[in-house]
Amino acid sequence: MNLTKESKAEKLTELARRRGFFWPALELYGGVSGFLSFGELGVKLKEKIIRLWRDYFVYRHDFTEVDTPLISPYTVFEVSGHVESFKDPMAECSKCHRKFRADHLLMEFGRHVPERMSIEDMKKELNKGDVKCKECGNTKWDVGHFLTMFRTTIGPYSENEGFMRPETAQGMFTEFKRLYEVSRGKMPLGVAQIGKAFRNEISPRQGVIRLREFSMMEVEFFFDPSDPACHLLDQVEDEELRILPEETVAKGIEEPLVMTVKEALNKGVIKQEWLAYFMVLSKKFLRKLGIPEDQQRFYAKLPGERAHYSAQTYDHEVLLDKFGWVEVAGHAYRTDYDLSSHMKKSSVDLSISVQLKEPIKVKRLKMNIDAKKIWKAFPDKVSGILKGLHGMNPEDVKKEIEDLGAVVVEGCRLPMDAVEFVEVEEETKVRRFIPHVVEPSFGIERLIYATLEYAYWEKEERRVVLRILPCLAPIQAAVFPLVSKKRLQKKSLAVLEDLRRRGIDVIYDDSGSIGRRYARADEIGVPFSITTDYQTLDDDTVTVRDRDTWKQKRISVKDLSEYLLELLHYNCSLDESKESYR
Amino acid sequence: MNLTKESKAEKLTELARRRGFFWPALELYGGVSGFLSFGELGVKLKEKIIRLWRDYFVYRHDFTEVDTPLISPYTVFEVSGHVESFKDPMAECSKCHRKFRADHLLMEFGRHVPERMSIEDMKKELNKGDVKCKECGNTKWDVGHFLTMFRTTIGPYSENEGFMRPETAQGMFTEFKRLYEVSRGKMPLGVAQIGKAFRNEISPRQGVIRLREFSMMEVEFFFDPSDPACHLLDQVEDEELRILPEETVAKGIEEPLVMTVKEALNKGVIKQEWLAYFMVLSKKFLRKLGIPEDQQRFYAKLPGERAHYSAQTYDHEVLLDKFGWVEVAGHAYRTDYDLSSHMKKSSVDLSISVQLKEPIKVKRLKMNIDAKKIWKAFPDKVSGILKGLHGMNPEDVKKEIEDLGAVVVEGCRLPMDAVEFVEVEEETKVRRFIPHVVEPSFGIERLIYATLEYAYWEKEERRVVLRILPCLAPIQAAVFPLVSKKRLQKKSLAVLEDLRRRGIDVIYDDSGSIGRRYARADEIGVPFSITTDYQTLDDDTVTVRDRDTWKQKRISVKDLSEYLLELLHYNCSLDESKESYR
Repeated sequence: MNLTKESKAEKLTELARRRGFFWPALELYGGVSGFLSFGELGVKLKEKIIRLWRDYFVYRHDFTEVDTPLISPYTVFEVSGHVESFKDPMAECSKCHRKFRADHLLMEFGRHVPERMSIEDMKKELNKGDVKCKECGNTKWDVGHFLTMFRTTIGPYSENEGFMRPETAQGMFTEFKRLYEVSRGKMPLGVAQIGKAFRNEISPRQGVIRLREFSMMEVEFFFDPSDPACHLLDQVEDEELRILPEETVAKGIEEPLVMTVKEALNKGVIKQEWLAYFMVLSKKFLRKLGIPEDQQRFYAKLPGERAHYSAQTYDHEVLLDKFGWVEVAGHAYRTDYDLSSHMKKSSVDLSISVQLKEPIKVKRLKMNIDAKKIWKAFPDKVSGILKGLHGMNPEDVKKEIEDLGAVVVEGCRLPMDAVEFVEVEEETKVRRFIPHVVEPSFGIERLIYATLEYAYWEKEERRVVLRILPCLAPIQAAVFPLVSKKRLQKKSLAVLEDLRRRGIDVIYDDSGSIGRRYARADEIGVPFSITTDYQTLDDDTVTVRDRDTWKQKRISVKDLSEYLLELLHYNCSLDESKESYR
Repeated sequence: MNLTKESKAEKLTELARRRGFFWPALELYGGVSGFLSFGELGVKLKEKIIRLWRDYFVYRHDFTEVDTPLISPYTVFEVSGHVESFKDPMAECSKCHRKFRADHLLMEFGRHVPERMSIEDMKKELNKGDVKCKECGNTKWDVGHFLTMFRTTIGPYSENEGFMRPETAQGMFTEFKRLYEVSRGKMPLGVAQIGKAFRNEISPRQGVIRLREFSMMEVEFFFDPSDPACHLLDQVEDEELRILPEETVAKGIEEPLVMTVKEALNKGVIKQEWLAYFMVLSKKFLRKLGIPEDQQRFYAKLPGERAHYSAQTYDHEVLLDKFGWVEVAGHAYRTDYDLSSHMKKSSVDLSISVQLKEPIKVKRLKMNIDAKKIWKAFPDKVSGILKGLHGMNPEDVKKEIEDLGAVVVEGCRLPMDAVEFVEVEEETKVRRFIPHVVEPSFGIERLIYATLEYAYWEKEERRVVLRILPCLAPIQAAVFPLVSKKRLQKKSLAVLEDLRRRGIDVIYDDSGSIGRRYARADEIGVPFSITTDYQTLDDDTVTVRDRDTWKQKRISVKDLSEYLLELLHYNCSLDESKESYR
């Protein structure tokens, strides 16, 4: 067990490449940073992590799963705020025109980069003479923003710009209305999506940790903001979280507080009960992947660092050998930001109405519009202006007049006295609201890497065993004929076919010594190695060798699949499986 | 059963949208042609079709599955020939600049569009005065090519162009070397990939049939061209295929010939045994999806219509109600086109070497290079030229000289007599070859649609039953408490939890009359509806209603999951499951 920090990550990378978990894509063209290819073991591990995630986050809550496009038109990401905010500061060498992440470059040259550092300040710092271009040694820099979404054009018209989605979330907001209808008016409504997302990094360099193309598993949980309580809270309120709240982070403290969910909610450290609930699930899910609780923490994003849509965000971080604390999930309280924005832009009503038993009185702002005054000011445009004005929310009109001094409709600045506001009180049996959203969001490739790193173990010098949870193992069983005899090979293949038919991921290997075959199986985490030998031909038994203990056990072939299935499912069922969502 | 042709497709589309199988994406912004969103039922159906496909094409052959990037740099699709060939003819109205598929437009105006019609000829036809722009009525047209790949830029340098892949295949070619190494030198080697692909259609209009973003399941089967026989042929050679060979297609005949695989191979109608083998699997796979053999056919692509890489292609077509014969899969013999192209461009050796028992004599072309002559012509560049020349294949150099009159290295046109060619005979115990490739390739969305259309059935007027194979049903069981009583609801949820734990996709529904609940379940193809009633509380039995016969049966709760699992797997195991690949 004398692994140096560097070497573990390196050995794991070498193993992942040699055995085909994953490797940098397009090696034959020198590679393209930020893109990976996954081989069979990677594909299977990914699938099993997804299955486990669905157990934790989707099935038991009866959430609905969707699959929306990866390419979306400009409008979607304009409305979501990504066009405005999804940018990195970029420094360009004025001589050779090499481009770098400006903040990373400053940090490499020993600068402290405060939050929300302006482009102007970065430019000043970069041009102080000591920050040299790695390519040409020049010290003069241009600094600007780089939009980190992949752009494309949809169809043959160059003005129809589109983007590869940087998160799967928007599809769940744009399709919310239909999803709500399909669910026959369920509220709260949980929607899940698993799929690719893209981030056009300026110069990614951390292998599997910083990818331009990656996979996400996200839930958007829609709830009534006037009924924000989590009815599952009693299941989790005594759970402890290792947490760094905003004020702790702001002080630069790195050591998390340990507090129960109840405490965190009482102290306002977590602002929303559902947010807390999903954070606990997230912790348990990672524990199941093999990451101990003391190697996990929840790190608050400071207001300036949070995504533009979020009222509170905790990064769920994992301690990795080479990379330090790495975010593998984000838990954000997105409020009604996205739905409201899409509602405003599309003019499609995305609010939910609730029938009340008793009528309630609601105050409402009403506009009295003086058409005559508008006609006097804009005689040619009056009908368009009136139509536009009627389509607007009185609250918004009032705010615009207050903020900007007047309201502009159809390009016309209306006279101040053309619109009057009166507050009216109405009785109604309908309450309308725009759902709020809490979002747990996971990056699959980072989870794969973290899972592998925590499973990586050297039993003896250079004898690698991947101690991955049996139900997550890409290959769950291997069948070996002890010697290369036709009858043993045939028997082994029959055993394999039977296990495969029971849904077990199984391989066959008859090349090399049995010791080498065990070693090859250990290295990719096969929990059970099954060997047929001469005794098998006599009494129809096989040996089953355990990956972690290297102990062997003789089992009758007819009991084999049941025996393995039980061990494969053991410890993989949810610890909370008895508690129903309803 | 009085469905008119139009109405079935329309009803299915309405059902798919209302129940959340799939619908046009971004309806709130008026939709974007060519993009769909899938709801829970669509996601689950897709997953089950993928699982069945893996049973047919991947697992039983021990093929390896990969997951490679969706975005690739320009080079990949330049080398693959897509930049040159993946284009549609586009007509642009010279007045309002609306753009149309030129060939489609001509056909709409009654023109016959022959294969390989040139852009010039299209321009002539379009400008004869009768082809009016649908937008503005103008009759003058510009005609050109439109590259139907989505373009993007990778990273911050505008010259680093990339594309969204139009097929998953290239990733399997570019990563071939590693895949071959990971497989420890397996040949033949089957590689599978399932994932998104993109085609930037000019103006897609056929809903689910013509998408800009879609999903594929592809196998690239690599084999030794000097050992092209399929060792599984005996399993399929007596199978009949409904086939339209090239000469039949060329005559304009639409009625397929029915012939056995053996005949088709003997007559040269199918050129490669593996191609024939996968065509039979393809037929059987579609039959399992519920598409009868007489609604399927294999349609040869004529040389001019085939993709640039293919020596033979059969489209696997299915007869659909509204769309006619629609391609759901393609079977192509890609030869060594892709590997050779990537090998040439990258200078990475992608050939395979086989150790021979007996040495063989091979003839080889050798270059004798006269460095002096090169030095005389290009004194400054001689070392670069020599290095370049040594890295080139003598066959290629000879061909270039023959075709172009000289060879150009490092931008220098070498003197004719600087290189001499001699044929040498060598003895070797190593044979080298570039694998040939046969490719079965499926479009998932079209399979989903075809599956639903063939499952769609109206039992009585307006009483819809989706008679989908139980193992493919998105939801496999529904649990209903007969009446809304706490104890029955609780019991029903316990039954649900138990079935879910056994891996059955199950829903719970307690709203509305039992008749309405059955109807809702039938309409989405739930094969088994389980009802708890007062008797359940006495003797722990439930009724199980069959979707297709509407017959009910009383079953003990303790036997329920086994009973359902058996029915769910019945008819879903492979009919060829006994026959092993080895």
